[in-house]
Amino acid sequence: MNKKKYFITIEGGEGSGKTTQAALIKEYLELKGYKTLLTREPGGTVSAEAIRNILLDPNSKLVPLSELFLYEAARAQHIEEVIMPALKSGKVVVCDRFTDATAAYQGHGRGLNLQFINKFNSEASLGLIPILTIYLDIEPSKGLHKAKGLHKEYCGKNGDRLERESIQFHNKVRKGYLNQAEKYPKRIKVVKTQSNLEKTQELIRKIIDTVL
Amino acid sequence: MNKKKYFITIEGGEGSGKTTQAALIKEYLELKGYKTLLTREPGGTVSAEAIRNILLDPNSKLVPLSELFLYEAARAQHIEEVIMPALKSGKVVVCDRFTDATAAYQGHGRGLNLQFINKFNSEASLGLIPILTIYLDIEPSKGLHKAKGLHKEYCGKNGDRLERESIQFHNKVRKGYLNQAEKYPKRIKVVKTQSNLEKTQELIRKIIDTVL
Repeated sequence: MNKKKYFITIEGGEGSGKTTQAALIKEYLELKGYKTLLTREPGGTVSAEAIRNILLDPNSKLVPLSELFLYEAARAQHIEEVIMPALKSGKVVVCDRFTDATAAYQGHGRGLNLQFINKFNSEASLGLIPILTIYLDIEPSKGLHKAKGLHKEYCGKNGDRLERESIQFHNKVRKGYLNQAEKYPKRIKVVKTQSNLEKTQELIRKIIDTVL
Repeated sequence: MNKKKYFITIEGGEGSGKTTQAALIKEYLELKGYKTLLTREPGGTVSAEAIRNILLDPNSKLVPLSELFLYEAARAQHIEEVIMPALKSGKVVVCDRFTDATAAYQGHGRGLNLQFINKFNSEASLGLIPILTIYLDIEPSKGLHKAKGLHKEYCGKNGDRLERESIQFHNKVRKGYLNQAEKYPKRIKVVKTQSNLEKTQELIRKIIDTVL
């Protein structure tokens, strides 16, 4: 493998199935002979998981700016402690959510200034840019219904802090993601979620084959 | 009272006695007939106190950038949820630590770029600048000894994450505070801690009398 940093991110709204697809991507990459690391944002380190708990707790009454800083804090820790060392050791890193999520959720969703967010993203991620970002596109009302159902089934509760946001909020987030994809068409590939997991994964694998 | 925002901060290294002095300042202001709010950073709201726990936990292996973002996250929440509303209602707000702490600890102590920190500070605090900052100056080895003793007495543990930092780190923080005081001599007043609490408070009250 050459010195290129193989950093792949997967993005999507609630209920888009990205966590499952990320696991299947890892499986595929290993089949192809790569050493991999699958990780997620916010999280991936002890302190970043503690930050994640604050971010997802429905009792956290976070103002948008505080929410933004928390995501960047988790990211800065994750990048230095986990992602950069894995990339340096030659692994392909697959990350469930990254900087595009901040642009979509805090920028388009919450209405914070995008230029400002881009600057923060770049600082927190030490300038690291994915070689490929898969955006799983799902109609928000459909995804949200699915996500809340899963949350109830596993946790017995009515969704986390973000899942409890209005459908208007989630529509803005989707628009944000599509806007990002338009801005960075070479890096971000939009994959419409299919009727089943395997079909969606098949589309993703075809895209991965063009990069790795 | 006019529309001026009466926002006073108190700063100092570990063991400088600023928390006690802040309580005495509040008492004095109330004697003078002001409505007051005493609060602290990081903290002052539910989520900011949760962030505080991450920041002070010796098991949090935070990189400097993540630490900085966490302080700013706590600040943004504190400003919008607590400080601004109190100032608008006409209260004098006394805050135990604020933006100068970030310059001293994360800038001078951790070595992060000061210009960058100033920008973050200004964003997170919505541009709010204290009308007066009292910096309690104590020799770090002396202060640290005192802080660790109190921590052990109250919590049975060997100091929080910051108290466990080296004396070299705390010397840099002190230098940082003195540097801030030099840069902003009108706003920041350096008060050397005296042989007892009352004497230190007496010096502080004289300064407060010149402002309120």
